[in-house]
Amino acid sequence: MNTFENISPFDYRYYGRNKSKDVLAKYLSEEAYVRSLARVEAALTQTLADKGVCSQDIAKEVTKACEQVTADEMYAEEDRIKHDIRGLANSIRKRVSDKAKPYVHFSSTSFDIVNTANMLRYKEFTQDVLIPKLLELEKAWIDLARREKYTLQVGRTHGQHAEPITFGFTIAEYVDRLGNRIAEFQDKHTKLRGKMSGAVGAYNASSLLIDNPLEFEKLVMQKLNMEPTLHSTQIVTPEPILDLIHATVSCFGVLANFADDMRQLQRTEIGEVGEHFASDQVGSSTMPQKKNPINFENVKSFWKEIMPRINTLYMDQISEHQRDLTNSASARFIPEIFAGLYLSTERLIRVSSKLQVDKEAMLRNFNLHKDLIAAEPLYILLGAHNHPDAHETVKQLTLKARDKKVALQDIAMNEASLKPYFDKFTAKQKEIILHPETYTGIASKKVDDVCNFWEEKLR
Amino acid sequence: MNTFENISPFDYRYYGRNKSKDVLAKYLSEEAYVRSLARVEAALTQTLADKGVCSQDIAKEVTKACEQVTADEMYAEEDRIKHDIRGLANSIRKRVSDKAKPYVHFSSTSFDIVNTANMLRYKEFTQDVLIPKLLELEKAWIDLARREKYTLQVGRTHGQHAEPITFGFTIAEYVDRLGNRIAEFQDKHTKLRGKMSGAVGAYNASSLLIDNPLEFEKLVMQKLNMEPTLHSTQIVTPEPILDLIHATVSCFGVLANFADDMRQLQRTEIGEVGEHFASDQVGSSTMPQKKNPINFENVKSFWKEIMPRINTLYMDQISEHQRDLTNSASARFIPEIFAGLYLSTERLIRVSSKLQVDKEAMLRNFNLHKDLIAAEPLYILLGAHNHPDAHETVKQLTLKARDKKVALQDIAMNEASLKPYFDKFTAKQKEIILHPETYTGIASKKVDDVCNFWEEKLR
Amino acid sequence: MNTFENISPFDYRYYGRNKSKDVLAKYLSEEAYVRSLARVEAALTQTLADKGVCSQDIAKEVTKACEQVTADEMYAEEDRIKHDIRGLANSIRKRVSDKAKPYVHFSSTSFDIVNTANMLRYKEFTQDVLIPKLLELEKAWIDLARREKYTLQVGRTHGQHAEPITFGFTIAEYVDRLGNRIAEFQDKHTKLRGKMSGAVGAYNASSLLIDNPLEFEKLVMQKLNMEPTLHSTQIVTPEPILDLIHATVSCFGVLANFADDMRQLQRTEIGEVGEHFASDQVGSSTMPQKKNPINFENVKSFWKEIMPRINTLYMDQISEHQRDLTNSASARFIPEIFAGLYLSTERLIRVSSKLQVDKEAMLRNFNLHKDLIAAEPLYILLGAHNHPDAHETVKQLTLKARDKKVALQDIAMNEASLKPYFDKFTAKQKEIILHPETYTGIASKKVDDVCNFWEEKLR
Amino acid sequence: MNTFENISPFDYRYYGRNKSKDVLAKYLSEEAYVRSLARVEAALTQTLADKGVCSQDIAKEVTKACEQVTADEMYAEEDRIKHDIRGLANSIRKRVSDKAKPYVHFSSTSFDIVNTANMLRYKEFTQDVLIPKLLELEKAWIDLARREKYTLQVGRTHGQHAEPITFGFTIAEYVDRLGNRIAEFQDKHTKLRGKMSGAVGAYNASSLLIDNPLEFEKLVMQKLNMEPTLHSTQIVTPEPILDLIHATVSCFGVLANFADDMRQLQRTEIGEVGEHFASDQVGSSTMPQKKNPINFENVKSFWKEIMPRINTLYMDQISEHQRDLTNSASARFIPEIFAGLYLSTERLIRVSSKLQVDKEAMLRNFNLHKDLIAAEPLYILLGAHNHPDAHETVKQLTLKARDKKVALQDIAMNEASLKPYFDKFTAKQKEIILHPETYTGIASKKVDDVCNFWEEKLR
Repeated sequence: MNTFENISPFDYRYYGRNKSKDVLAKYLSEEAYVRSLARVEAALTQTLADKGVCSQDIAKEVTKACEQVTADEMYAEEDRIKHDIRGLANSIRKRVSDKAKPYVHFSSTSFDIVNTANMLRYKEFTQDVLIPKLLELEKAWIDLARREKYTLQVGRTHGQHAEPITFGFTIAEYVDRLGNRIAEFQDKHTKLRGKMSGAVGAYNASSLLIDNPLEFEKLVMQKLNMEPTLHSTQIVTPEPILDLIHATVSCFGVLANFADDMRQLQRTEIGEVGEHFASDQVGSSTMPQKKNPINFENVKSFWKEIMPRINTLYMDQISEHQRDLTNSASARFIPEIFAGLYLSTERLIRVSSKLQVDKEAMLRNFNLHKDLIAAEPLYILLGAHNHPDAHETVKQLTLKARDKKVALQDIAMNEASLKPYFDKFTAKQKEIILHPETYTGIASKKVDDVCNFWEEKLR
Repeated sequence: MNTFENISPFDYRYYGRNKSKDVLAKYLSEEAYVRSLARVEAALTQTLADKGVCSQDIAKEVTKACEQVTADEMYAEEDRIKHDIRGLANSIRKRVSDKAKPYVHFSSTSFDIVNTANMLRYKEFTQDVLIPKLLELEKAWIDLARREKYTLQVGRTHGQHAEPITFGFTIAEYVDRLGNRIAEFQDKHTKLRGKMSGAVGAYNASSLLIDNPLEFEKLVMQKLNMEPTLHSTQIVTPEPILDLIHATVSCFGVLANFADDMRQLQRTEIGEVGEHFASDQVGSSTMPQKKNPINFENVKSFWKEIMPRINTLYMDQISEHQRDLTNSASARFIPEIFAGLYLSTERLIRVSSKLQVDKEAMLRNFNLHKDLIAAEPLYILLGAHNHPDAHETVKQLTLKARDKKVALQDIAMNEASLKPYFDKFTAKQKEIILHPETYTGIASKKVDDVCNFWEEKLR
Repeated sequence: MNTFENISPFDYRYYGRNKSKDVLAKYLSEEAYVRSLARVEAALTQTLADKGVCSQDIAKEVTKACEQVTADEMYAEEDRIKHDIRGLANSIRKRVSDKAKPYVHFSSTSFDIVNTANMLRYKEFTQDVLIPKLLELEKAWIDLARREKYTLQVGRTHGQHAEPITFGFTIAEYVDRLGNRIAEFQDKHTKLRGKMSGAVGAYNASSLLIDNPLEFEKLVMQKLNMEPTLHSTQIVTPEPILDLIHATVSCFGVLANFADDMRQLQRTEIGEVGEHFASDQVGSSTMPQKKNPINFENVKSFWKEIMPRINTLYMDQISEHQRDLTNSASARFIPEIFAGLYLSTERLIRVSSKLQVDKEAMLRNFNLHKDLIAAEPLYILLGAHNHPDAHETVKQLTLKARDKKVALQDIAMNEASLKPYFDKFTAKQKEIILHPETYTGIASKKVDDVCNFWEEKLR
Repeated sequence: MNTFENISPFDYRYYGRNKSKDVLAKYLSEEAYVRSLARVEAALTQTLADKGVCSQDIAKEVTKACEQVTADEMYAEEDRIKHDIRGLANSIRKRVSDKAKPYVHFSSTSFDIVNTANMLRYKEFTQDVLIPKLLELEKAWIDLARREKYTLQVGRTHGQHAEPITFGFTIAEYVDRLGNRIAEFQDKHTKLRGKMSGAVGAYNASSLLIDNPLEFEKLVMQKLNMEPTLHSTQIVTPEPILDLIHATVSCFGVLANFADDMRQLQRTEIGEVGEHFASDQVGSSTMPQKKNPINFENVKSFWKEIMPRINTLYMDQISEHQRDLTNSASARFIPEIFAGLYLSTERLIRVSSKLQVDKEAMLRNFNLHKDLIAAEPLYILLGAHNHPDAHETVKQLTLKARDKKVALQDIAMNEASLKPYFDKFTAKQKEIILHPETYTGIASKKVDDVCNFWEEKLR
């Protein structure tokens, strides 16, 4: 099929034409699904051989067939018999000897294979691809935070200038939040479980054939580095994969917030950061100042597309009795959720590692209301040194400074009535009043604390 | 690209391998998008010729190029210059003479083309493909409702038997609700608007070049059977497409409810309806009674996947100032919403037109509590004929009937104290007590009322 | 109950302590619900009298009782018998003579009353309270747009300066979008329907007692200025109220976008607009420049709280057979959705009508890149006058202007090679190059077009 | 305020009139919020005393004032000065001596108090109220599962009879899933964090006054049994509370699934379970068979109301820079999410502990297709004993059994060609064919495994 005949923006644009396509395809494409199904079928027959139900030769034959079977074959067979997993089993059987045929898919129900295969590939994707990629982003942010540890920036609340911080401190917020989400992924992907418990979860068929079906199930899972679920019906309990999707969507929220903040800091009037432009890249041809935050916009947009999809999984928690199949089509869309986060992570790594930080713009913006920022520590310190009416006094000084167009500090320091208090100020306290750009609290220390914590915690 | 390398279930399974693929591809694929963009570019240059800005020959040349340009070309050029619509314009320009080149994309901004092209294809898709398909389903349900107009079925509330209706009446609910949604589509798809108002919506550039840019915009739209939006920024107002998606999602809710009801009526214990099984179709091989409602399940599952996506459009209503681009990637997913409804509609047409209705099962289920159903009209009628304590009296009779294991009616008719009241009953009233299966109110009349109304209204 | 024992922020804070509380309470409180139920019960008995089923005296007696019955009585009776509507009927019956008692709630089922009463109050609320309030906001925005029709502002896309507009044009966007939503409300609130069709919608019980139950239902509805639904089960079809909630949520999106834009324009670095501060209002005590956009923030926050709730109504479209009751508790929350929009509308009226617009700040911001803004029309006009390489030429001039720190226009006008082209420029075209602040297209005309259109359309 | 003037169904109905109201009010009402704020203020001043910044007498004075201050006072003061937390501080100050006044709210910003107070009460609510209540439900389900460990029930997939299980096994699914969610609550509520880091999170003000602000913050938190967050801006990182809400909503999904299953099993045609009816409770007066699953319906309905609200929290993850306030109003609704789950849990405990289980109905339903259920093990066992065409053979036998209206087993056992295979069957295998009701796999063993596991794990 021509790529552009597709209707999914993933397939024709974001994933299908991406350099990372193969990395994702290995776990998230339909081919990857079929390969994963075949791996489970192979593990099943191998375990039958280990338990003496069939020979090791048969197991080898089946394993080889499982390695070779393709999505094309399975789909062609499904078209014929209208059942996908039976289509797979037939496709495997075609490739083995008659004596091996009965041991393909032996004793299992379709969803033993489907559930196990999906949880297997989601687990491996998270572990082998997603977490490493998130760690790359974490590293990029740690590097950026450390580099900009002392870069003065005004802190903003309500979009208004508030108190000074450093740009490294701004980034440390995201180091912390992303670190926290990576830890959540590290925990939750290990909770995914497989099953080999049959059509209603009571091991009805396997109990007929196998002495200890619980042990048997466990052995199959071990071959896949998985564990069986404690209870299942036709399907594994839905909460573990839901938790992993919650990790994905809530991690995406962190990226979206970062992207939004950077978009805003890139505004024409603010201009504190910018996406790197390749020298040969055309921005707006006639407006060279126009450097659009297209990557940050893209991340925010993907978040809006992906976030609501967790509602599908919340609804899919509800399945009647030992299962209805109203979660069958919807569950096929889960790989897109992972792909969305992966692609946005990759994009932010690219942008973050080359982020242009304009320290002069940060200083210029800070200076816009530098004076008024000094008012706060002044009022606090006068109060701390027992001035009876610090608040009103500073307010009056502020108005006076404005009227006379001089700096608040100059007015204040020359105010005779305040001299007794200033005399009690420590050197550092005086410094802060005279140089409010030093009023950054422990912002730079926090950069180290946060970066060290997560470097340690995430190895 | 191999189909199974895709990650979207639409592309590798539900749409990409469907018989209706071409019908949808014509409007919803990325190729269709590019074709639609090119149609807008052609309309633009044609209007320039009409207004004498360029020659008709140039317009013809550009129109021809627009008919030939492909998604491949546009994407290849985008890869080179990192701008999609400029990539398109370049691809068109390559195909025309030097003197025609300046009139390609003349005076317009990218989103003049993108917005107009998308609204155009969504409008045409709704009008030419989606509404006709929904009307097919409406017809299938009208036929079914009429056919089963008199088929007795027990009405159920809380999952409990309540009062008798007919199966046609059950279906008439869906005729009404679907009819109502089709009417909503008929209204809302005509409200989609295009634009040719430039980068911030104030016709800045076009005002330089064209005397009456509002008239010019209107003429471009007329060539596409569109109208311009009253106000725009870089983009058209988001509410018209949002309303159309609301129509889509709320229509999907009607299909999902139908599917859910049929699933439930197909339960083993109820067995009132069944999906038709082709004689050669394998259900569960060893359990011939097992006819799974797989199509109904699929529709419900697709509803769960698609419904939450409207949240993306609600969030995309918010775009900063004259536009931020955080709705760029997300808006590319809109075609999937349409495709989801279309595919489920097609599926329900197939199943509804062959729905197996088991009248005997309906009667058997009705008879389970036939007796007790008679209690309600009995109590109401006694009350209406001024029995001072109808409720308690019927309750006692009911208990007595149960004890003696005889029919409530037999007990009641032989109860001397009730005779004076029964004497006042009309023939029809007596009939209902003796034959509670006639206690269906005006269920069958409603079938006609509803079907006639919508046949008339939807032409 | 002490207000602060409540857990709903509506009750203890936003609605319960609001000046508009009574306006909302009249339609949206639980008392209002009970009053509305009683009105339907009264209309029912009145129609019985009109049809001669009972006397007019009885109807008067019941009507009076319906006017007097309270939520307290109904709830007390519900506590006793565990059924809310029966609790209401009993409470009414207690207040009338024995001969009137049978004609209370006669022939109807609970949801005949509940559905009709709710649709009635939502319809009246929309018509009498919500639409007038939205029209007030529309008027405030029209006034603002007209007042600022010529106020120069830079248009922004991607958060970057793009092309000039006027602040009136910025506001006209919201005039248009809000007007469009008001029109949607005007349409959809008239589509709400009542019912009097009994327990499963087939008029089973009423057919026993009334000759023409359809006519009877219609007469009851007429007394309430309502119409009956075409088909119902135990409940009216869910789509009309869903459409009204969609109107509510999508209208909220318009308010949220406005609030977001104003928040951003109020940023310290931009400072183009500000919420009015009462002279006695304390901002931040020591930071007099800090005027937080708290009302705009509140509107955005309420939008985030309310918007997702439409998902409940999408899920509530699905009700099994002639109804399950899984939409009973959830439907009780609908009034909060209306209250959310009303309260935010009221807030924005207050803020918009006193919005502080800083024209100097708008000019200062525009001037930041005034020069570069001139580059666009220059390039377009040179091209239009057949300059062979307009784009590259202007780019070079721009770089030169930057290097020499002179205005682009000065460089350009003195460039000999361009003279032949400039000579062909119209006066207006020259004006735009020399004074890019006039490059606002038809922004101010659009203000009139949009305001006039909606004033006309909305009367 | 009259309860029925409220608009929130929680306040006027589900919470406000509930027996458990006080349990919830203690943590979730607005009064509880104010009490929690005051506790944080007290802890702050106490820590100042511990560090020698003020005297222990002052700390005692402030602590006492904090214990006495009310929501009424705080709101009255807010009405005056338009700032809630300042309103609280003033209300506390009014109650203390002049020398104590400066040490109220000393060095802190509003959200130090607000965030810490909320996380504190949510943590305590989860620990002291919600988890114990969920454990009660877990116990009720464990008891039920064990009691019905051997009760035969047919397993259902797609709403169709599949393979036999036991009702205890059905319930064990919910024991497992609820246990898993309780474990999630146990983990996530300990991750909530407080802060005392000032207006932008850099300890700017507190660094002026306190030597080691990190240690100071930690000491304040210790007094509240809390820990400080690693990084904060004006607010704590949003992910910990989001995770707790995810636990809440996903736990609600488990309850909703249980409720849905029980609703379905209570259908007239199935009748396997029923909500207990008090002897004096009126069901439907004239239809004594009608026992509506109103509690199960209510739980499902509440789930639909509450579940989508997590979208608000996902959106609230995004807060600009060191905070915008668009999460201020929305965060006030969080207590309703907890209340929703609590009330539904309480309801299910009540219903589950008295659940009526109709074993005869379960047996009757099982017997509907008992025969065909035998076909599966027959086919599997013949295959396992090397019958060359087990599948087709059994299919033919099944059709024959149907034609002759005899049991499949009788036909099979008398089939000469099968005798050699039957001879190889073990006694247990024969038993299963003859008595398919024994074909329950390890269903009953699973009941013990699951119940034991969670009893152990949850102590």
